[in-house]
Amino acid sequence: MTNEYQPPKVWTHDSENGGEWAKINRPESGATHEEVLPAGKHPLQLYSIATPNGQKATIMLEELLAAGKNAEYDAHLIKIGEGDQFSSGFVDVNPNSKIPALVDNSTETPTNVFESASILLYLAEKFDAFLPKDAQAKVKVMNWLFWLHGSAPYLGGGFGHFYAYAPEKFEYPINRFTMETKRQLDVLDKQLANNRYLGGDEYSIADIATWPWYGNLVLGALYSAKEFLDVDSYPNVLRWANEIAERPAVKRGRTVNRTWGEDWENVPERHSAEDIDAVLKLK
Amino acid sequence: MTNEYQPPKVWTHDSENGGEWAKINRPESGATHEEVLPAGKHPLQLYSIATPNGQKATIMLEELLAAGKNAEYDAHLIKIGEGDQFSSGFVDVNPNSKIPALVDNSTETPTNVFESASILLYLAEKFDAFLPKDAQAKVKVMNWLFWLHGSAPYLGGGFGHFYAYAPEKFEYPINRFTMETKRQLDVLDKQLANNRYLGGDEYSIADIATWPWYGNLVLGALYSAKEFLDVDSYPNVLRWANEIAERPAVKRGRTVNRTWGEDWENVPERHSAEDIDAVLKLK
Repeated sequence: MTNEYQPPKVWTHDSENGGEWAKINRPESGATHEEVLPAGKHPLQLYSIATPNGQKATIMLEELLAAGKNAEYDAHLIKIGEGDQFSSGFVDVNPNSKIPALVDNSTETPTNVFESASILLYLAEKFDAFLPKDAQAKVKVMNWLFWLHGSAPYLGGGFGHFYAYAPEKFEYPINRFTMETKRQLDVLDKQLANNRYLGGDEYSIADIATWPWYGNLVLGALYSAKEFLDVDSYPNVLRWANEIAERPAVKRGRTVNRTWGEDWENVPERHSAEDIDAVLKLK
Repeated sequence: MTNEYQPPKVWTHDSENGGEWAKINRPESGATHEEVLPAGKHPLQLYSIATPNGQKATIMLEELLAAGKNAEYDAHLIKIGEGDQFSSGFVDVNPNSKIPALVDNSTETPTNVFESASILLYLAEKFDAFLPKDAQAKVKVMNWLFWLHGSAPYLGGGFGHFYAYAPEKFEYPINRFTMETKRQLDVLDKQLANNRYLGGDEYSIADIATWPWYGNLVLGALYSAKEFLDVDSYPNVLRWANEIAERPAVKRGRTVNRTWGEDWENVPERHSAEDIDAVLKLK
């Protein structure tokens, strides 16, 4: 990256560019190979991996089960580093080739749901949980659900990429996205100074969406950036992150479709509660 | 930006960094000054400026009025280059200090709505419009509404910043965000090859959210990047963008809170239909 660079008139793809995830980033969409998705016995079929966006869906499903809802599910591992998200089966469910993707087979024809927040909202409405019924309280939750969905790209695709994954430490983008990440943490900190949860007194899909990103970040489980971001400046985010981390459903959900942790937290596929029970016992 | 850069142990803010919008980017949130927001006579009070996110809200309001709904509104200009979004009044409505923000005074206590997509969903539900009632059709729209909300940050905060606004042409981030922008355009192009609108046969809030970003982009009204992105490769996006551009409510909505266009498209504040009528007549 030198100061002499001038963009061409028409951009063309140089496949050498891109850093750690270069091999799965492309300028085109669509399927690269024919492959049918696996399907289990439950009505809800999740296709995912335990990145922050993946954790949103598995934590939600475990929260629903913990709340006594009939949200039994199969969670199939989509190995994004190996391009599973570009199979014809996956693209049929989510043409954007991003995890998580959900198929609900309990409806008259199967319902395809993609985008993590769309999955949270769909499940909240289907099972009448984690979304307030009172109109004003609901708007608060929706404001923060959309806040997370529009903010996390700056954390993941901006800060995380340039701080942790890019092939070089590029100063300008690191400064740009660090500043925005700290601003976002400060927004959360001020909101959580006066509210137990993001939407108010009730734990909701706004928290379930936000914890896997900003909760993991301040707890040191994402990008190893606790010191760099001075996360102790955000005591209310830490309080909230620690409280949510202790929820049994969060402890369960974060393990599902995980393959890179310790033995006691890796549940690559989940087809029944026992799949998680067996692994958590190893701790 | 040299290859020798090593991030410090703890990041600190250097206010020299940041490019064209540096003066309004901060690592903290919250109000910088005390100032009450103006309020007009209508139940709906919008605080905004005609960036793509701003256009979503004003196009939606004009579409509702064109559909015969009682969605009369006052649209107040928030000069983001001058820091209006950091007033105490604005922060009370949206602690994230981003436009658009909406206050609905028709509810028992005023309802604050922030995040452009949250405003679209709120208005769609309030007025029962531009969101299908059929459950399967609704999920499709919500998938694409969330797709836009999570994708546009790569276009605006990524591609737009590095291609158009950053103080230098940095090659690596331009390549990174151009590749993603082209992938997103290809996702849209494939979806619009088989669907008149993003969610299917019906024009919806998914289109209203997406047109101001990707529609303006392929029509050359954003970042002057038509040639660089080779937008002619996306004929279905162009077909869709042109069709929506012809809608009377889109022609009206895009002018509201605009200050940088031609005389016939700048309606800095909107308090009645006549404010727009008068300006459009100048063309």
